[in-house]
Amino acid sequence: MSASSANPAGYSIEEGNAASRNAYNWSKKTFANRTGKPGEPAQDLDGGFSNEIRFGAERLGISSDGIGTKIEVAERLNKYDTLGYDLIAMTADDLIAAGFVPTNLSNIIDVNHLDYGVVDEMMRGLHDAANFAQLAITGGEIAELGNRIGGWPGAKMNFNWCSTAIGVLHPSLAQPLSGKTAQAGHVVVALRSPSFRSNGYSLARKTLERLFGENWHEAPYDGTDADQYATWGEAMLAPSLIYAPGVATLLDAGLPLHGVAHITGGGVADNFQRVLKNGLGAVLDNLFEPLPAMQRLCEIGDLSSETAYLYWNMGTGMLIVTEETSAAAVVASLQQSGYDAQVAGYLTAESGVMLRVGTGELRYA
Amino acid sequence: MSASSANPAGYSIEEGNAASRNAYNWSKKTFANRTGKPGEPAQDLDGGFSNEIRFGAERLGISSDGIGTKIEVAERLNKYDTLGYDLIAMTADDLIAAGFVPTNLSNIIDVNHLDYGVVDEMMRGLHDAANFAQLAITGGEIAELGNRIGGWPGAKMNFNWCSTAIGVLHPSLAQPLSGKTAQAGHVVVALRSPSFRSNGYSLARKTLERLFGENWHEAPYDGTDADQYATWGEAMLAPSLIYAPGVATLLDAGLPLHGVAHITGGGVADNFQRVLKNGLGAVLDNLFEPLPAMQRLCEIGDLSSETAYLYWNMGTGMLIVTEETSAAAVVASLQQSGYDAQVAGYLTAESGVMLRVGTGELRYA
Repeated sequence: MSASSANPAGYSIEEGNAASRNAYNWSKKTFANRTGKPGEPAQDLDGGFSNEIRFGAERLGISSDGIGTKIEVAERLNKYDTLGYDLIAMTADDLIAAGFVPTNLSNIIDVNHLDYGVVDEMMRGLHDAANFAQLAITGGEIAELGNRIGGWPGAKMNFNWCSTAIGVLHPSLAQPLSGKTAQAGHVVVALRSPSFRSNGYSLARKTLERLFGENWHEAPYDGTDADQYATWGEAMLAPSLIYAPGVATLLDAGLPLHGVAHITGGGVADNFQRVLKNGLGAVLDNLFEPLPAMQRLCEIGDLSSETAYLYWNMGTGMLIVTEETSAAAVVASLQQSGYDAQVAGYLTAESGVMLRVGTGELRYA
Repeated sequence: MSASSANPAGYSIEEGNAASRNAYNWSKKTFANRTGKPGEPAQDLDGGFSNEIRFGAERLGISSDGIGTKIEVAERLNKYDTLGYDLIAMTADDLIAAGFVPTNLSNIIDVNHLDYGVVDEMMRGLHDAANFAQLAITGGEIAELGNRIGGWPGAKMNFNWCSTAIGVLHPSLAQPLSGKTAQAGHVVVALRSPSFRSNGYSLARKTLERLFGENWHEAPYDGTDADQYATWGEAMLAPSLIYAPGVATLLDAGLPLHGVAHITGGGVADNFQRVLKNGLGAVLDNLFEPLPAMQRLCEIGDLSSETAYLYWNMGTGMLIVTEETSAAAVVASLQQSGYDAQVAGYLTAESGVMLRVGTGELRYA
């Protein structure tokens, strides 16, 4: 791992992408097994985070993900009832980004040794999050794996948690949302993220441990929103906001969406570029302010904006491409659904993404 | 873990069942979120290993599972291209046991640090297994989780691997298979398992380590099928046979199936009792011979039949309840599909399961 230890998060994004691409290529070779049969894969979502499968007239999406190393924060705080929001956000918001309204979730909990109380707290939170997202938890498995599972040594139980969500293509859509119908001049609406969501924790933990030592979670938190969180641990555990219900409401209202980006690992530019097709680019000059915890970590951890915007969402969790004449209605609907939303920029005929960041700019080819 | 260390596998089945039941209860409270909407859960599969969800006229099944600690055997042998059969068998065969023909699979690989070559070998095997099972791999995720993942220290990469499979209710069935239509006098057909499948590895590894020490996988294998495996490691890595295609062929032929049990953790009796409804019992006096590796482990590890039949499949991987007049046709069809199958016993009006084991009997209330 010498090659990857050069980057600030301690793992290689390129190596991960190569392995994912290779895994996808193996998977794609199996698509023909269902050609013309129930479960037929749609071939047009290559590279997306959720895949379309067809059963008769029904067009379903499927998406799998876990909540990664954010779990260590919960272990440190001995608080497990918010992780369900992170778990559902990761897959449900990948689905809605492709136009699939999430309907069902199946989850797997891998534990070193079972703690009934911890699992109970996790499932209570998952139940709450499922109600928020209006989906049904219709599958689950708990596996006791001994030394195959690790984590914070002081925790009652170490575990990993992942899920697969299923959704149904919104009836107003002829095709999944992919960015293919987007045009220069279209407007980009941003949804604010009140948390790290479930990404960028390797860099954050490394930085916090360097600054505050092994028990960094107990260090007093001093971001500009310090009234909300007493410790760095609390600030880092803030749960993911699930955007799916808000975006589904936009589709219900018939508002024209031409692409949706869920901002996860890789940050704003990398995730948004996935919806930029046909050589389009974007100017995003009115994103939300960076999350106070991220801003503070950059200051005290001496991290550059370039690095921070590469690993963290920086306060924007979803970007929605709509038509100029509908932008105000999109913003208003999202606000009415309880989200912070604003026009963040527009698409350009020239490729590349420009982010205005404080008084400076970040440009991505 | 003092309470659970009393049992031979080192974990508490009762505690696991209680936590699973509690998790299911939390999940069930979310079913109402989809009442009358796409993704509506069927309420009648309480306690089953796969759940039914409905989209319009389509009735789908969903099942999630992992391959647990069998992965350590692959790590020890540095051979990763057979685990895909185990991964697919766990979920696909839970689905077919309820009458859902598996169509799609989404998988998640959690790794400590990424090894491209190991993942490539895993995915090649998953591809082969998907072709055998005639399903499409339409979702996947690889997560690098550092010290949250452990395993055999000598391995190139430690990992856990789980998946969620989707299937479609076989068109010949009005309801998922549950055992509700079974009657006394119905015949039980057994499918032979040529491996441990992906269950019972805690007990097996504990026994092998006690007998042969830390490097038990290199110990020469001396079961009656020693021509097939040079070491205990090789014998323990034997992949799961996927039964779904064979059972789907039975349904295609219109053969009457009244219940199917996938023999996984908990052994023959526990898994078969799940399909025994309405107070029925069974006499299984012609099961397959115990797998040679299991037989040999009992001998050299001084394990009783009671213990072995509680944790291992003992050579029978699936049990199918059919009508007496169709039993010969069921066996013939399965054999034609390439499986070892035989009539293993019959259902009784009195509850309880009796297994004939060698010259003795095991009885379960």
